[in-house]
Amino acid sequence: MAEDKNIPQVMLPEPTLRRLPWYLAYVNLLSAKDIEYVSSTQISKEINVDASQIAKDLSFLNIKGKTRIGYEVKSLAKGLVDFLGFKKIHNTFMMGVGSLGAALIQDSGLSQYGLRIVAGFDINPKIIGTSICDVPIFHISEFAKHQQEFKAEIGILAVPVENAQEATDIMIKGGIKAVWNYTPFRIRVPENIVIQNTSIYAHLAVMYNRMEAKK
Amino acid sequence: MAEDKNIPQVMLPEPTLRRLPWYLAYVNLLSAKDIEYVSSTQISKEINVDASQIAKDLSFLNIKGKTRIGYEVKSLAKGLVDFLGFKKIHNTFMMGVGSLGAALIQDSGLSQYGLRIVAGFDINPKIIGTSICDVPIFHISEFAKHQQEFKAEIGILAVPVENAQEATDIMIKGGIKAVWNYTPFRIRVPENIVIQNTSIYAHLAVMYNRMEAKK
Repeated sequence: MAEDKNIPQVMLPEPTLRRLPWYLAYVNLLSAKDIEYVSSTQISKEINVDASQIAKDLSFLNIKGKTRIGYEVKSLAKGLVDFLGFKKIHNTFMMGVGSLGAALIQDSGLSQYGLRIVAGFDINPKIIGTSICDVPIFHISEFAKHQQEFKAEIGILAVPVENAQEATDIMIKGGIKAVWNYTPFRIRVPENIVIQNTSIYAHLAVMYNRMEAKK
Repeated sequence: MAEDKNIPQVMLPEPTLRRLPWYLAYVNLLSAKDIEYVSSTQISKEINVDASQIAKDLSFLNIKGKTRIGYEVKSLAKGLVDFLGFKKIHNTFMMGVGSLGAALIQDSGLSQYGLRIVAGFDINPKIIGTSICDVPIFHISEFAKHQQEFKAEIGILAVPVENAQEATDIMIKGGIKAVWNYTPFRIRVPENIVIQNTSIYAHLAVMYNRMEAKK
Protein backbone atom coordinates (compact mmCIF):
# COMPACT_ATOMS: atom_id res chain seq x y z
CA MET A 1 0.00 0.00 0.00
CA ALA A 2 1.37 3.35 -1.09
CA GLU A 3 0.34 5.18 2.09
CA ASP A 4 2.35 2.77 4.18
CA LYS A 5 5.62 3.28 2.40
CA ASN A 6 7.07 5.62 5.03
CA ILE A 7 6.07 3.48 7.96
CA PRO A 8 8.95 1.45 9.33
CA GLN A 9 7.86 -2.19 9.47
CA VAL A 10 9.97 -3.14 12.45
CA MET A 11 9.00 -5.57 15.13
CA LEU A 12 8.64 -3.36 18.17
CA PRO A 13 9.07 -4.51 21.78
CA GLU A 14 5.68 -5.41 23.25
CA PRO A 15 5.84 -2.85 26.09
CA THR A 16 6.37 -0.09 23.51
CA LEU A 17 3.46 -1.35 21.43
CA ARG A 18 1.26 -1.33 24.49
CA ARG A 19 2.19 2.24 25.36
CA LEU A 20 1.62 3.70 21.88
CA PRO A 21 -2.21 3.49 22.15
CA TRP A 22 -1.99 5.45 25.44
CA TYR A 23 -0.15 8.24 23.65
CA LEU A 24 -2.67 8.10 20.83
CA ALA A 25 -5.64 8.36 23.22
CA TYR A 26 -4.06 11.42 24.83
CA VAL A 27 -3.07 13.26 21.65
CA ASN A 28 -6.53 12.61 20.22
CA LEU A 29 -7.91 14.45 23.25
CA LEU A 30 -5.52 17.36 22.61
CA SER A 31 -6.41 17.34 18.93
CA ALA A 32 -10.13 17.61 19.79
CA LYS A 33 -9.27 20.69 21.86
CA ASP A 34 -7.35 22.20 18.88
CA ILE A 35 -4.06 22.13 20.76
CA GLU A 36 -1.22 22.29 18.23
CA TYR A 37 1.90 21.12 20.05
CA VAL A 38 2.72 18.83 22.95
CA SER A 39 6.04 18.07 24.63
CA SER A 40 7.10 14.63 25.85
CA THR A 41 7.22 16.17 29.35
CA GLN A 42 3.54 17.05 29.08
CA ILE A 43 2.63 13.59 27.80
CA SER A 44 4.76 12.14 30.58
CA LYS A 45 2.88 14.06 33.26
CA GLU A 46 -0.47 12.97 31.89
CA ILE A 47 0.34 9.32 31.12
CA ASN A 48 2.78 8.59 33.94
CA VAL A 49 5.57 7.28 31.68
CA ASP A 50 9.11 8.76 31.69
CA ALA A 51 9.57 11.51 29.09
CA SER A 52 12.75 9.83 27.85
CA GLN A 53 10.85 6.56 27.37
CA ILE A 54 8.18 8.38 25.37
CA ALA A 55 10.82 9.99 23.12
CA LYS A 56 12.43 6.57 22.65
CA ASP A 57 9.10 4.87 21.86
CA LEU A 58 8.21 7.53 19.30
CA SER A 59 11.64 7.39 17.67
CA PHE A 60 10.76 3.82 16.57
CA LEU A 61 8.14 5.46 14.38
CA ASN A 62 10.62 8.06 13.06
CA ILE A 63 8.63 10.71 14.90
CA LYS A 64 10.80 13.41 16.40
CA GLY A 65 9.76 16.47 18.38
CA LYS A 66 11.13 19.98 17.82
CA THR A 67 13.34 21.50 20.51
CA ARG A 68 11.34 23.70 22.89
CA ILE A 69 8.10 23.16 20.93
CA GLY A 70 7.60 19.43 21.09
CA TYR A 71 5.50 17.25 18.81
CA GLU A 72 2.93 18.56 16.39
CA VAL A 73 -0.29 17.05 17.74
CA LYS A 74 -2.06 16.30 14.45
CA SER A 75 0.91 14.67 12.77
CA LEU A 76 1.73 12.73 15.94
CA ALA A 77 -1.85 11.39 16.02
CA LYS A 78 -1.67 10.49 12.34
CA GLY A 79 1.75 8.86 12.71
CA LEU A 80 0.54 6.75 15.63
CA VAL A 81 -2.72 5.65 14.05
CA ASP A 82 -0.98 4.72 10.77
CA PHE A 83 1.77 2.82 12.52
CA LEU A 84 -0.62 0.96 14.81
CA GLY A 85 -2.61 -0.27 11.83
CA PHE A 86 -5.90 1.09 13.17
CA LYS A 87 -6.81 2.69 9.84
CA LYS A 88 -6.31 -0.46 7.83
CA ILE A 89 -9.25 -2.84 7.66
CA HIS A 90 -8.52 -6.37 8.91
CA ASN A 91 -11.21 -8.86 7.98
CA THR A 92 -11.79 -11.14 10.93
CA PHE A 93 -13.75 -14.30 11.75
CA MET A 94 -15.31 -15.00 15.14
CA MET A 95 -14.79 -18.63 16.15
CA GLY A 96 -17.46 -19.45 18.71
CA VAL A 97 -20.53 -17.26 18.97
CA GLY A 98 -21.53 -17.92 22.57
CA SER A 99 -21.89 -15.23 25.15
CA LEU A 100 -18.45 -13.65 24.73
CA GLY A 101 -18.24 -14.10 20.95
CA ALA A 102 -21.65 -12.50 20.46
CA ALA A 103 -20.66 -9.66 22.80
CA LEU A 104 -17.49 -8.95 20.82
CA ILE A 105 -19.41 -8.92 17.54
CA GLN A 106 -21.64 -6.25 19.07
CA ASP A 107 -18.74 -4.06 20.15
CA SER A 108 -18.54 -1.53 17.34
CA GLY A 109 -15.41 -0.11 19.00
CA LEU A 110 -13.32 -2.86 17.42
CA SER A 111 -14.11 -1.64 13.91
CA GLN A 112 -12.83 1.81 14.87
CA TYR A 113 -9.50 0.11 15.51
CA GLY A 114 -9.41 -1.59 12.15
CA LEU A 115 -10.88 -4.95 13.15
CA ARG A 116 -13.90 -5.84 11.03
CA ILE A 117 -15.68 -9.02 12.06
CA VAL A 118 -17.21 -10.36 8.82
CA ALA A 119 -18.60 -13.73 9.93
CA GLY A 120 -19.09 -15.93 12.95
CA PHE A 121 -18.79 -19.72 13.25
CA ASP A 122 -20.43 -22.09 15.71
CA ILE A 123 -21.92 -25.55 15.96
CA ASN A 124 -25.15 -24.52 17.72
CA PRO A 125 -28.00 -25.18 15.23
CA LYS A 126 -30.11 -22.50 16.93
CA ILE A 127 -27.84 -19.68 15.77
CA ILE A 128 -26.46 -21.03 12.47
CA GLY A 129 -28.14 -19.16 9.64
CA THR A 130 -28.94 -16.15 11.84
CA SER A 131 -26.92 -12.96 12.11
CA ILE A 132 -25.82 -10.53 14.82
CA CYS A 133 -25.44 -6.87 13.83
CA ASP A 134 -25.44 -8.00 10.19
CA VAL A 135 -22.63 -10.50 10.82
CA PRO A 136 -23.78 -13.91 9.48
CA ILE A 137 -23.24 -17.03 11.58
CA PHE A 138 -22.15 -20.20 9.75
CA HIS A 139 -21.42 -23.78 10.73
CA ILE A 140 -17.77 -24.41 11.59
CA SER A 141 -17.55 -26.98 8.79
CA GLU A 142 -17.88 -24.09 6.32
CA PHE A 143 -14.92 -22.19 7.72
CA ALA A 144 -12.45 -22.81 4.88
CA LYS A 145 -15.08 -22.08 2.22
CA HIS A 146 -15.90 -18.66 3.70
CA GLN A 147 -12.27 -17.84 4.31
CA GLN A 148 -11.74 -18.08 0.55
CA GLU A 149 -14.60 -15.64 0.08
CA PHE A 150 -13.81 -13.08 2.82
CA LYS A 151 -10.00 -13.48 2.92
CA ALA A 152 -10.09 -13.10 6.71
CA GLU A 153 -6.60 -13.07 8.17
CA ILE A 154 -7.54 -12.92 11.85
CA GLY A 155 -9.59 -15.43 13.83
CA ILE A 156 -10.93 -14.58 17.27
CA LEU A 157 -11.08 -17.67 19.48
CA ALA A 158 -14.04 -17.60 21.86
CA VAL A 159 -15.04 -21.26 22.18
CA PRO A 160 -15.21 -23.39 25.37
CA VAL A 161 -11.79 -24.40 26.70
CA GLU A 162 -12.25 -28.06 25.76
CA ASN A 163 -12.61 -27.11 22.08
CA ALA A 164 -9.93 -24.40 22.01
CA GLN A 165 -7.14 -26.40 20.33
CA GLU A 166 -9.40 -28.13 17.82
CA ALA A 167 -11.02 -24.83 16.81
CA THR A 168 -7.58 -23.25 16.45
CA ASP A 169 -6.44 -26.07 14.16
CA ILE A 170 -9.54 -25.60 11.98
CA MET A 171 -8.85 -21.87 11.68
CA ILE A 172 -5.22 -22.35 10.72
CA LYS A 173 -6.05 -25.08 8.22
CA GLY A 174 -8.65 -22.67 6.85
CA GLY A 175 -6.04 -19.99 6.14
CA ILE A 176 -6.05 -17.75 9.23
CA LYS A 177 -2.74 -15.94 9.89
CA ALA A 178 -3.35 -14.66 13.43
CA VAL A 179 -5.36 -15.99 16.36
CA TRP A 180 -6.73 -13.61 18.99
CA ASN A 181 -7.24 -16.04 21.86
CA TYR A 182 -9.89 -15.02 24.41
CA THR A 183 -9.91 -18.42 26.12
CA PRO A 184 -7.77 -19.14 29.18
CA PHE A 185 -6.34 -22.15 27.29
CA ARG A 186 -2.76 -22.13 26.01
CA ILE A 187 -3.25 -23.00 22.38
CA ARG A 188 -0.39 -24.26 20.20
CA VAL A 189 0.18 -22.90 16.69
CA PRO A 190 2.86 -23.28 13.99
CA GLU A 191 5.67 -20.72 14.08
CA ASN A 192 4.36 -18.65 11.18
CA ILE A 193 1.07 -17.94 12.97
CA VAL A 194 0.65 -14.94 15.29
CA ILE A 195 -1.02 -15.50 18.67
CA GLN A 196 -2.38 -12.74 20.86
CA ASN A 197 -3.66 -13.96 24.22
CA THR A 198 -6.28 -11.74 25.84
CA SER A 199 -7.59 -13.59 28.82
CA ILE A 200 -9.87 -11.09 30.49
CA TYR A 201 -10.47 -13.65 33.24
CA ALA A 202 -6.76 -13.70 34.06
CA HIS A 203 -6.99 -9.94 34.51
CA LEU A 204 -9.82 -10.56 36.97
CA ALA A 205 -7.53 -12.86 38.96
CA VAL A 206 -4.91 -10.11 39.22
CA MET A 207 -7.52 -7.53 40.26
CA TYR A 208 -9.10 -9.78 42.92
CA ASN A 209 -5.69 -10.54 44.40
CA ARG A 210 -4.74 -6.85 44.59
CA MET A 211 -8.09 -6.10 46.25
CA GLU A 212 -7.51 -8.75 48.92
CA ALA A 213 -3.99 -7.46 49.50
CA LYS A 214 -5.29 -3.91 50.12
CA LYS A 215 -7.98 -4.97 52.62
CA MET B 1 -15.20 -15.77 55.55
CA ALA B 2 -14.56 -19.10 57.21
CA GLU B 3 -13.90 -21.00 53.99
CA ASP B 4 -11.06 -18.64 53.14
CA LYS B 5 -9.11 -19.17 56.34
CA ASN B 6 -6.60 -21.53 54.80
CA ILE B 7 -5.94 -19.44 51.75
CA PRO B 8 -2.73 -17.43 51.99
CA GLN B 9 -3.58 -13.78 51.34
CA VAL B 10 -0.26 -12.85 49.83
CA MET B 11 0.25 -10.40 47.05
CA LEU B 12 1.48 -12.62 44.23
CA PRO B 13 3.69 -11.48 41.32
CA GLU B 14 1.52 -10.55 38.35
CA PRO B 15 3.10 -13.12 35.96
CA THR B 16 2.22 -15.88 38.45
CA LEU B 17 -1.33 -14.60 38.78
CA ARG B 18 -1.68 -14.59 35.03
CA ARG B 19 -0.45 -18.18 34.74
CA LEU B 20 -2.72 -19.63 37.44
CA PRO B 21 -5.88 -19.40 35.26
CA TRP B 22 -4.03 -21.38 32.54
CA TYR B 23 -3.37 -24.18 35.02
CA LEU B 24 -6.98 -24.01 36.16
CA ALA B 25 -8.33 -24.26 32.60
CA TYR B 26 -6.17 -27.31 32.00
CA VAL B 27 -6.94 -29.16 35.25
CA ASN B 28 -10.65 -28.49 34.72
CA LEU B 29 -10.30 -30.34 31.42
CA LEU B 30 -8.59 -33.26 33.18
CA SER B 31 -11.24 -33.24 35.88
CA ALA B 32 -13.99 -33.47 33.27
CA LYS B 33 -12.21 -36.57 31.91
CA ASP B 34 -12.09 -38.07 35.44
CA ILE B 35 -8.30 -38.03 35.50
CA GLU B 36 -7.13 -38.19 39.12
CA TYR B 37 -3.50 -37.06 39.14
CA VAL B 38 -1.33 -34.77 37.06
CA SER B 39 2.39 -34.01 37.29
CA SER B 40 3.95 -30.60 36.79
CA THR B 41 5.82 -32.13 33.84
CA GLN B 42 2.51 -33.01 32.21
CA ILE B 43 1.09 -29.54 32.86
CA SER B 44 4.34 -28.08 31.53
CA LYS B 45 4.07 -30.01 28.29
CA GLU B 46 0.49 -28.91 27.76
CA ILE B 47 0.83 -25.26 28.83
CA ASN B 48 4.37 -24.55 27.64
CA VAL B 49 5.62 -23.25 31.00
CA ASP B 50 8.66 -24.74 32.79
CA ALA B 51 7.74 -27.50 35.26
CA SER B 52 9.86 -25.82 37.94
CA GLN B 53 7.99 -22.55 37.39
CA ILE B 54 4.67 -24.35 37.77
CA ALA B 55 5.79 -25.96 41.04
CA LYS B 56 6.95 -22.55 42.27
CA ASP B 57 3.70 -20.84 41.27
CA LEU B 58 1.62 -23.49 43.01
CA SER B 59 3.75 -23.37 46.14
CA PHE B 60 2.46 -19.78 46.67
CA LEU B 61 -0.93 -21.42 47.23
CA ASN B 62 0.52 -24.01 49.61
CA ILE B 63 -0.27 -26.65 46.99
CA LYS B 64 2.37 -29.38 46.80
CA GLY B 65 2.44 -32.42 44.58
CA LYS B 66 3.32 -35.94 45.74
CA THR B 67 6.58 -37.47 44.56
CA ARG B 68 6.08 -39.68 41.50
CA ILE B 69 2.28 -39.11 41.53
CA GLY B 70 1.94 -35.37 41.14
CA TYR B 71 -1.00 -33.19 42.04
CA GLU B 72 -4.47 -34.49 42.82
CA VAL B 73 -6.55 -32.97 40.01
CA LYS B 74 -9.73 -32.21 41.95
CA SER B 75 -8.02 -30.58 44.91
CA LEU B 76 -5.70 -28.64 42.60
CA ALA B 77 -8.73 -27.30 40.73
CA LYS B 78 -10.44 -26.38 43.98
CA GLY B 79 -7.30 -24.78 45.40
CA LEU B 80 -6.85 -22.67 42.29
CA VAL B 81 -10.44 -21.55 41.99
CA ASP B 82 -10.60 -20.62 45.69
CA PHE B 83 -7.33 -18.74 45.59
CA LEU B 84 -8.21 -16.88 42.40
CA GLY B 85 -11.44 -15.63 43.95
CA PHE B 86 -13.59 -16.97 41.11
CA LYS B 87 -16.07 -18.58 43.53
CA LYS B 88 -16.66 -15.41 45.53
CA ILE B 89 -19.27 -13.01 44.17
CA HIS B 90 -17.97 -9.51 43.46
CA ASN B 91 -20.75 -6.98 42.90
CA THR B 92 -19.73 -4.72 40.07
CA PHE B 93 -20.97 -1.54 38.38
CA MET B 94 -20.59 -0.84 34.67
CA MET B 95 -19.61 2.77 34.06
CA GLY B 96 -20.61 3.62 30.51
CA VAL B 97 -23.12 1.44 28.70
CA GLY B 98 -22.17 2.11 25.11
CA SER B 99 -21.16 -0.59 22.69
CA LEU B 100 -18.41 -2.19 24.81
CA GLY B 101 -20.17 -1.72 28.16
CA ALA B 102 -23.36 -3.32 26.85
CA ALA B 103 -21.34 -6.16 25.34
CA LEU B 104 -19.61 -6.90 28.65
CA ILE B 105 -22.95 -6.91 30.50
CA GLN B 106 -24.11 -9.57 28.04
CA ASP B 107 -21.06 -11.77 28.58
CA SER B 108 -22.33 -14.29 31.10
CA GLY B 109 -18.80 -15.74 31.27
CA LEU B 110 -17.79 -12.99 33.70
CA SER B 111 -20.26 -14.20 36.32
CA GLN B 112 -18.70 -17.66 36.12
CA TYR B 113 -15.49 -16.00 37.28
CA GLY B 114 -17.13 -14.28 40.22
CA LEU B 115 -17.87 -10.92 38.61
CA ARG B 116 -21.53 -10.00 38.91
CA ILE B 117 -22.53 -6.81 37.11
CA VAL B 118 -25.48 -5.47 39.11
CA ALA B 119 -26.09 -2.09 37.47
CA GLY B 120 -24.94 0.12 34.62
CA PHE B 121 -24.53 3.90 34.53
CA ASP B 122 -24.67 6.26 31.59
CA ILE B 123 -25.83 9.75 30.59
CA ASN B 124 -27.70 8.72 27.44
CA PRO B 125 -31.42 9.41 28.13
CA LYS B 126 -32.39 6.73 25.59
CA ILE B 127 -31.03 3.90 27.74
CA ILE B 128 -31.51 5.24 31.28
CA GLY B 129 -34.41 3.40 32.87
CA THR B 130 -34.00 0.40 30.57
CA SER B 131 -32.14 -2.80 31.36
CA ILE B 132 -29.83 -5.25 29.58
CA CYS B 133 -30.02 -8.92 30.63
CA ASP B 134 -31.88 -7.77 33.77
CA VAL B 135 -29.12 -5.30 34.66
CA PRO B 136 -30.77 -1.89 35.23
CA ILE B 137 -29.22 1.25 33.69
CA PHE B 138 -29.20 4.40 35.83
CA HIS B 139 -28.05 7.98 35.34
CA ILE B 140 -24.47 8.58 36.47
CA SER B 141 -25.68 11.15 39.00
CA GLU B 142 -27.24 8.28 40.95
CA PHE B 143 -23.99 6.33 41.26
CA ALA B 144 -23.31 6.96 44.96
CA LYS B 145 -26.93 6.25 45.90
CA HIS B 146 -26.91 2.84 44.21
CA GLN B 147 -23.46 1.98 45.53
CA GLN B 148 -24.92 2.23 49.04
CA GLU B 149 -27.63 -0.18 47.99
CA PHE B 150 -25.56 -2.74 46.03
CA LYS B 151 -22.23 -2.37 47.88
CA ALA B 152 -20.41 -2.76 44.57
CA GLU B 153 -16.65 -2.80 45.09
CA ILE B 154 -15.59 -2.96 41.44
CA GLY B 155 -16.34 -0.44 38.71
CA ILE B 156 -15.74 -1.28 35.05
CA LEU B 157 -14.72 1.79 33.08
CA ALA B 158 -16.06 1.74 29.52
CA VAL B 159 -16.74 5.41 28.75
CA PRO B 160 -15.26 7.54 25.93
CA VAL B 161 -11.62 8.52 26.52
CA GLU B 162 -12.49 12.18 27.10
CA ASN B 163 -14.66 11.24 30.09
CA ALA B 164 -12.42 8.53 31.51
CA GLN B 165 -10.85 10.49 34.37
CA GLU B 166 -14.07 12.25 35.39
CA ALA B 167 -16.01 8.97 35.42
CA THR B 168 -13.23 7.36 37.48
CA ASP B 169 -13.40 10.18 40.04
CA ILE B 170 -17.18 9.73 40.34
CA MET B 171 -16.76 6.00 40.93
CA ILE B 172 -14.12 6.45 43.61
CA LYS B 173 -16.09 9.20 45.35
CA GLY B 174 -19.03 6.79 45.20
CA GLY B 175 -17.16 4.10 47.14
CA ILE B 176 -15.62 1.86 44.47
CA LYS B 177 -12.43 0.05 45.57
CA ALA B 178 -11.17 -1.24 42.22
CA VAL B 179 -11.40 0.09 38.67
CA TRP B 180 -11.25 -2.28 35.71
CA ASN B 181 -10.22 0.14 32.98
CA TYR B 182 -11.20 -0.87 29.44
CA THR B 183 -10.34 2.53 27.97
CA PRO B 184 -6.93 3.24 26.44
CA PHE B 185 -6.65 6.24 28.80
CA ARG B 186 -4.21 6.21 31.70
CA ILE B 187 -6.48 7.08 34.60
CA ARG B 188 -5.13 8.33 37.91
CA VAL B 189 -6.43 6.97 41.22
CA PRO B 190 -5.49 7.32 44.90
CA GLU B 191 -3.05 4.76 46.27
CA ASN B 192 -5.67 2.71 48.08
CA ILE B 193 -7.60 2.02 44.88
CA VAL B 194 -6.78 -0.98 42.65
CA ILE B 195 -6.49 -0.43 38.90
CA GLN B 196 -6.56 -3.17 36.31
CA ASN B 197 -5.95 -1.97 32.77
CA THR B 198 -7.40 -4.17 30.04
CA SER B 199 -7.01 -2.33 26.82
CA ILE B 200 -8.14 -4.80 24.21
CA TYR B 201 -7.26 -2.24 21.54
CA ALA B 202 -3.64 -2.21 22.72
CA HIS B 203 -3.63 -5.98 22.20
CA LEU B 204 -4.81 -5.34 18.65
CA ALA B 205 -1.81 -3.06 18.11
CA VAL B 206 0.56 -5.83 19.21
CA MET B 207 -1.16 -8.39 16.99
CA TYR B 208 -1.16 -6.14 13.90
CA ASN B 209 2.53 -5.39 14.35
CA ARG B 210 3.43 -9.08 14.66
CA MET B 211 1.38 -9.83 11.55
CA GLU B 212 3.25 -7.21 9.54
CA ALA B 213 6.57 -8.51 10.82
CA LYS B 214 5.74 -12.05 9.62
CA LYS B 215 4.73 -10.99 6.11
